[in-house]
Amino acid sequence: MDKLYIIKIGGNIIDDEAKLASFLRDFASFNGKKILVHGGGKLATRMAEQLGVEQKLVDGRRITDAETLKIVTMVYAGYINKNIVAQLQAQHCNAMGLCGADGDLMLAHKRQHPVLDYGFVGDVDAINTQLIHTLLQSNISLVLAPITHDQQGQLLNTNADTIAQEIAKAMCSSYETALIYSFEKNGVLLDVNDEDSVIPELKPAYYQELKQKNRIFAGMIPKLDNAFAALNSGVRQVIIGKAEKLNELINGTSGTSIINE
Amino acid sequence: MDKLYIIKIGGNIIDDEAKLASFLRDFASFNGKKILVHGGGKLATRMAEQLGVEQKLVDGRRITDAETLKIVTMVYAGYINKNIVAQLQAQHCNAMGLCGADGDLMLAHKRQHPVLDYGFVGDVDAINTQLIHTLLQSNISLVLAPITHDQQGQLLNTNADTIAQEIAKAMCSSYETALIYSFEKNGVLLDVNDEDSVIPELKPAYYQELKQKNRIFAGMIPKLDNAFAALNSGVRQVIIGKAEKLNELINGTSGTSIINE
Repeated sequence: MDKLYIIKIGGNIIDDEAKLASFLRDFASFNGKKILVHGGGKLATRMAEQLGVEQKLVDGRRITDAETLKIVTMVYAGYINKNIVAQLQAQHCNAMGLCGADGDLMLAHKRQHPVLDYGFVGDVDAINTQLIHTLLQSNISLVLAPITHDQQGQLLNTNADTIAQEIAKAMCSSYETALIYSFEKNGVLLDVNDEDSVIPELKPAYYQELKQKNRIFAGMIPKLDNAFAALNSGVRQVIIGKAEKLNELINGTSGTSIINE
Repeated sequence: MDKLYIIKIGGNIIDDEAKLASFLRDFASFNGKKILVHGGGKLATRMAEQLGVEQKLVDGRRITDAETLKIVTMVYAGYINKNIVAQLQAQHCNAMGLCGADGDLMLAHKRQHPVLDYGFVGDVDAINTQLIHTLLQSNISLVLAPITHDQQGQLLNTNADTIAQEIAKAMCSSYETALIYSFEKNGVLLDVNDEDSVIPELKPAYYQELKQKNRIFAGMIPKLDNAFAALNSGVRQVIIGKAEKLNELINGTSGTSIINE
């Protein structure tokens, strides 16, 4: 089975032109099938401010109203996605930028909640694995914007972490999939204030032990629970680490590698 | 050879939600390989106004500066492109929206002019016919935004009419290509004030005759010269007519069909 890397980059990289350029050089240079999933960083927020569109929060949660959806579609699927693709092309990486509506790549439904209306937020139902396979086999690297569709003509805003995970799970019957979450820290840390305290390898038993001893930073727990859920769905490896060290994350010399026994 | 329709829709359709929805229903419903090329209508201009970006004109020509390029990338390749794709998906047409950087689909260079700097405007150098062929053979209909790239990381704004023509010319060795320019009039008119005076069929000799008699509206001449140039490059047929009558344009009962002898 071919190996497939699904790499999520966080907003802090998107927002920093030099870091993004450096990351994209690393992404372009490593061999193998690869998919990049990006969010939007602060650009969408700034665009909303410039256009006078107020961000709606209900119970501390951001709501995607029609105007916000328009902005994220423009910024994520337009500006950021196409600039990333153009930069990868310049690095001789044949990239193609898509959102979930393109080729029916990612089908979702508007989130249902008993009390809250999240607006145009989508939860993923299906991934078009055949299309992804066809494109990867044509040596195309995919760049995915976190916008899905509902097959009824509605675009939906979807969490980029979730998209990366759904793609990794869906592709694991045809590829040995590794899911890489790149963020601002060096990996999963034993001491949240010490960047040198990275746990290089995390298996279920050790994770349970660390959780019981309260050695895992609370904010990491949902991420790690999701990582183990992905492994249980057939993903081979989840790697969490710093975007600036992409090559090292891939060859296993940086970050935290989360694997099953 | 399979028939391939390359259809350009004008801004007046993009700007009108009901007309666009009706056009997309027609586009989705006809059988055959098809590519839709869209411009941006007034949305980009409105967005520029909202963001306080002044439109620069030099000698009456619009200049694409960096801020304008950002806006057209957001509006054309993001908002308009993805909404068209989502609507086509709702009509069970498996559409995929791309710009020229995606899969290196349309390579261009920044326009060189001895005196004028048009800014980030691209003239097309190459079309990735292999990729288009692969996607069409997967029963995907393409929706193309008029943004190209220069393989150096720069996106470029490119005229949508030109893109439609370049695609039609590039694909004519593998397909019997028909290029449809849909606009606000019923076709090429003998009398510009009479919508019933459509010329149903225009061949080179008749065109020369009409030109000599000054029976062709001056504004149409560059369009028609381009149409005949496309035919001389192997495009089978150019059809000019009203977007609201797409089905009739395709089956030859409306619009002007421009063909070689």
